[in-house]
Amino acid sequence: MTYRVEFVERTGIQLLESGRGHARYRMPLAGNENHVGVMYMGAFTVLAEATAAIPGISILEPERFYPIIKDIAVAFHKMAATDVFAEFSLDEPALEGLLADLERKGSAGYLAEFPMVDADGVTVATGKVTVKLLSHGWTKA
Amino acid sequence: MTYRVEFVERTGIQLLESGRGHARYRMPLAGNENHVGVMYMGAFTVLAEATAAIPGISILEPERFYPIIKDIAVAFHKMAATDVFAEFSLDEPALEGLLADLERKGSAGYLAEFPMVDADGVTVATGKVTVKLLSHGWTKA
Repeated sequence: MTYRVEFVERTGIQLLESGRGHARYRMPLAGNENHVGVMYMGAFTVLAEATAAIPGISILEPERFYPIIKDIAVAFHKMAATDVFAEFSLDEPALEGLLADLERKGSAGYLAEFPMVDADGVTVATGKVTVKLLSHGWTKA
Repeated sequence: MTYRVEFVERTGIQLLESGRGHARYRMPLAGNENHVGVMYMGAFTVLAEATAAIPGISILEPERFYPIIKDIAVAFHKMAATDVFAEFSLDEPALEGLLADLERKGSAGYLAEFPMVDADGVTVATGKVTVKLLSHGWTKA
């Protein structure tokens, strides 16, 4: 299941690892610098959204379900003068809970909270994203 | 005082009004659509940051002070199928308080919270941004 979003592609973000319930991304510094040459805020929000959403999207049948972002928050701890990395996973019980909610009530959701780290592994920001999974035209059986 | 950030320029964001303690921006839908043709999350975060920061930046002497974003949060209420608008103002007592803090302790900060509205004036998202103003090489007198 692939979503193409030009805004995201313009950042040059790279998916490094993905699988059922898992994603790891790299946001390149090049092209995403702010006015003082470190990673711009907006690149963090794109990285946070992708990292949060893909683990949930990984279990969706696209003809039945779709994701939306309910809210996103990023807190900045340190300037990032390198590429920035983030990963997030949902474990098997969490994934099964989401699928059960989708079948039972047509929607499901989770909060993804994770650090974003620079090339030395130092936490430069924290992401907190509420992801909702919804059904196309769901009606209670 | 102008900061050029390529990431921001790529969105096509337009400053509609600005003055001491005030900013109003338009984020165009064109070029900032997500996979279903409505405004992409990242365009909201860029709009929120600019709208929050410019009123504080408007009072800064650039050779003495600079702004940073401490945290940003955007909550989504409704899909936006038009350009999106946001404005934020700091009143004169707030501006004077910021300048007094900068002189006294070398730093100041404020929380900017405001709706983001579509072309019909409907609130599509809410932005909440903590802006810090800092001094270059400040030392207590």
